[in-house]
Amino acid sequence: MAFRLLSAVGWDCNLPRFRLDLEFDGNGYVGWQRQKNGPSIQETLETAIFEMLGERATAVSAGRTDAGVHALALTVHIDLMWTISADRLQAGLNYYLQAKSIAVVEATEAVDDFHARFAAVARHYRYIILNRRAPPTLEQGHVWHVPRPLDLSSMQAAATELTGHHDFTSFRASECQAKSPLKTLTSIVIERKQDLISFKLEAPSFLHHQVRNIVGTLKLIGAGTKPVGFAKMALHARSRSAAGPTAPARGLYFVRAEYPANLAQRT
Amino acid sequence: MAFRLLSAVGWDCNLPRFRLDLEFDGNGYVGWQRQKNGPSIQETLETAIFEMLGERATAVSAGRTDAGVHALALTVHIDLMWTISADRLQAGLNYYLQAKSIAVVEATEAVDDFHARFAAVARHYRYIILNRRAPPTLEQGHVWHVPRPLDLSSMQAAATELTGHHDFTSFRASECQAKSPLKTLTSIVIERKQDLISFKLEAPSFLHHQVRNIVGTLKLIGAGTKPVGFAKMALHARSRSAAGPTAPARGLYFVRAEYPANLAQRT
Repeated sequence: MAFRLLSAVGWDCNLPRFRLDLEFDGNGYVGWQRQKNGPSIQETLETAIFEMLGERATAVSAGRTDAGVHALALTVHIDLMWTISADRLQAGLNYYLQAKSIAVVEATEAVDDFHARFAAVARHYRYIILNRRAPPTLEQGHVWHVPRPLDLSSMQAAATELTGHHDFTSFRASECQAKSPLKTLTSIVIERKQDLISFKLEAPSFLHHQVRNIVGTLKLIGAGTKPVGFAKMALHARSRSAAGPTAPARGLYFVRAEYPANLAQRT
Repeated sequence: MAFRLLSAVGWDCNLPRFRLDLEFDGNGYVGWQRQKNGPSIQETLETAIFEMLGERATAVSAGRTDAGVHALALTVHIDLMWTISADRLQAGLNYYLQAKSIAVVEATEAVDDFHARFAAVARHYRYIILNRRAPPTLEQGHVWHVPRPLDLSSMQAAATELTGHHDFTSFRASECQAKSPLKTLTSIVIERKQDLISFKLEAPSFLHHQVRNIVGTLKLIGAGTKPVGFAKMALHARSRSAAGPTAPARGLYFVRAEYPANLAQRT
């Protein structure tokens, strides 16, 4: 009832849900989730919402990113009491997020049962290796620098062994909270553009550190430290110690999440 | 004679000339040339050479870049007394340039009459605009953020009016030291990839601020502030005030210089 009264003066009882797509530079952040040991993307976004609208909203994201991991379009949803257009919400949040290395690249009013995490049917990540002798300058903090030449075709051959439905225990962080290590890895596409090697991974969902552990393993194969068959052996061993090390966070990007078409936008 | 003696203990009387291709992030630098008001790329490179080899060498570059302008491969030559392989020179300089946002991406022993500035027959620049509402995060300091939508085809039409041999007085900085404002602009290629608009310019040589003044002018046309004919009118006016403002340095990259094949490398 209070909400109906408020509605007349600018509040809305429907609690409109907004979808925000965030681009951010993960350097200096502890990751998506609120933590005590430093600033998180979630906390910074929720603070901007409070500064702009005076509301304490909770932001729910398509995935938890690790400290130092970047995003091109991490989908988030928030429920707001304040009536505002998606355009004004985007402009206002970007104003309050200035100098925070976070930007709302897209804002849309979402249907009520849109859920950034549970409704996502696919997630896309990208990992970038700078493969040359010289260290990075313009890409500093945004790539993994691997001076030793990496062989693309052996990494591609090994990657195909990892796609499909598997027990990914060997590629899962010890602190991973998922109930099951069984996941379907839809695809891994590896491409080289001059000095940059890009790994594009798609799956309905990922285990903690799964992308970074896969890239760390493929890098050993690309460098010739391990044979092509190493990835398959590591997978079958179902033991974290059987696979390669975790690739650094700074080369990883959450690219985007996919949602069923009927949930994508309020009609 | 002294050199011949030194040659026996590791010095070389030929003063071998090296070609270095530099990638750098121009943020925090006053530009290529040594200046009193801050660190320059030239000074930082020459300091690294001194720290590595104990030699006071002078670095000559294919072009002077402005404060804040970046490079993908700015060609430089240096004469060294010390006998060293190009590979070891590259590795050593990159060690001393750590945390300086400058990297030697290629080092080769050059023929004696190679000259980074006078032998260059073409120079390539790129300018990047981030054309979207949301401010940059990952590309912060590396693009010009233009929120207003820019029309590619009108900028392309205007750009073709600027290519060829012309008096570029309208696109030349007042402090430009070139004797003549006559230059040949070989090509301007404008492309869009998602939110990023890239302007690729090639010419035998450029006037001071020429690329930034051209981009600043084309941006007015792309935004609809000025008609397509504005670029041609500005050119014919031969007055700096007739053209658009200077685009910010942070979107500009020196891509590479071209040299005659016989000068490219010592055989």
